[in-house]
Amino acid sequence: MGIVTNKTDKYQTCIDACNRCAQACHECFTACLNEDDVAARKNCISILMDCACMCQSSAAKMSMDSQYAKEHCQMCATICDKCAQECEMFKDNHCQKCAQECKKCADECRKMAGM
Amino acid sequence: MGIVTNKTDKYQTCIDACNRCAQACHECFTACLNEDDVAARKNCISILMDCACMCQSSAAKMSMDSQYAKEHCQMCATICDKCAQECEMFKDNHCQKCAQECKKCADECRKMAGM
Amino acid sequence: MGIVTNKTDKYQTCIDACNRCAQACHECFTACLNEDDVAARKNCISILMDCACMCQSSAAKMSMDSQYAKEHCQMCATICDKCAQECEMFKDNHCQKCAQECKKCADECRKMAGM
Amino acid sequence: MGIVTNKTDKYQTCIDACNRCAQACHECFTACLNEDDVAARKNCISILMDCACMCQSSAAKMSMDSQYAKEHCQMCATICDKCAQECEMFKDNHCQKCAQECKKCADECRKMAGM
Repeated sequence: MGIVTNKTDKYQTCIDACNRCAQACHECFTACLNEDDVAARKNCISILMDCACMCQSSAAKMSMDSQYAKEHCQMCATICDKCAQECEMFKDNHCQKCAQECKKCADECRKMAGM
Repeated sequence: MGIVTNKTDKYQTCIDACNRCAQACHECFTACLNEDDVAARKNCISILMDCACMCQSSAAKMSMDSQYAKEHCQMCATICDKCAQECEMFKDNHCQKCAQECKKCADECRKMAGM
Repeated sequence: MGIVTNKTDKYQTCIDACNRCAQACHECFTACLNEDDVAARKNCISILMDCACMCQSSAAKMSMDSQYAKEHCQMCATICDKCAQECEMFKDNHCQKCAQECKKCADECRKMAGM
Repeated sequence: MGIVTNKTDKYQTCIDACNRCAQACHECFTACLNEDDVAARKNCISILMDCACMCQSSAAKMSMDSQYAKEHCQMCATICDKCAQECEMFKDNHCQKCAQECKKCADECRKMAGM
């Protein structure tokens, strides 16, 4: 359900997934920077930041009912899928959980964009 | 509860309030632009965008457990309070609801920042 | 030329165009809100915000040499073109100038993305 | 000089410094992630992202002539100073250059905020 209007009701599941995924990626970014094998994680750390930013942008565009909400969610699905792949390579808890959030968000973004 | 770590557990109520408030302000921004008296709402529309952006930035900083999370939440509380004031001037449903979300978010941000 | 490395040299013209366009759209957003015929400008005002945000995101991705820099610039070109169209409908100075910046930025983004 | 209006003329030096600093920090972020001693740079990498985001937010607020432009520049000065300190600890070219950009940006933000 939209919060102050009903225009964004149709997006709410996807907005929630984007907000959760942004948080997961931001948390995982800091956790990865603090791992002993941080040198092995440079690609993962980069894409976690790409993914967190894209999820926040997509949540914003859906909340505004922007005419570019779908395009944002399409790109978001692509980046979330890639981020899930990168995170899955690492066996620690935060990367495994983050990969799950990224996949859920990618699925919601694809549904939202009619892909 | 944090999503992939427990570092952000202490911020979760505030992160959720910031995400809700960002969405409320983004929705209210579009709703105000579509009101007949949009000319009377220019200050409200401006600050709704300031507030939405600040809430998203604060959610990001808390999620990353940034050393500047508190400073962001302090400024966020200030902007949310002002946005609530502006929205309260308008009697439509979306502005009244948005004002409520802004006040809740300001309260959570103040608690988080120890103000 | 990149500022601290040479990795982003190839993007510098496009980064500069994105920064200029973001500023132009942010300025034009505020100027449009203050026009007497603001009610006629609601689409323009919405897309100015979409365009400003997208330009800032694209500048960030290029500056980080992100693997998603091209995808961001592709979407940025699309949004800049649309924003130019909207701004061109209004005869005031700020919209006319903003349309020019949007077109320049769209061109640079297309070149950058190899479109 | 503002790009489409003259409202932001007074901020132009600071907007330019913020855009340059955001780019420098984004470049330095990627360069640090690719250094052999990345493990020693985790604080630097975190704050580079804080600084880049804050500089982009400040540029946006000044460009919109937001009533919160000064507050953003105040926080930006604080974060830029801290980022300069972190970067100065590393002897490579990108961190040394980035520290210079951060200091210049902090100075401009302080001037702008009347600090």
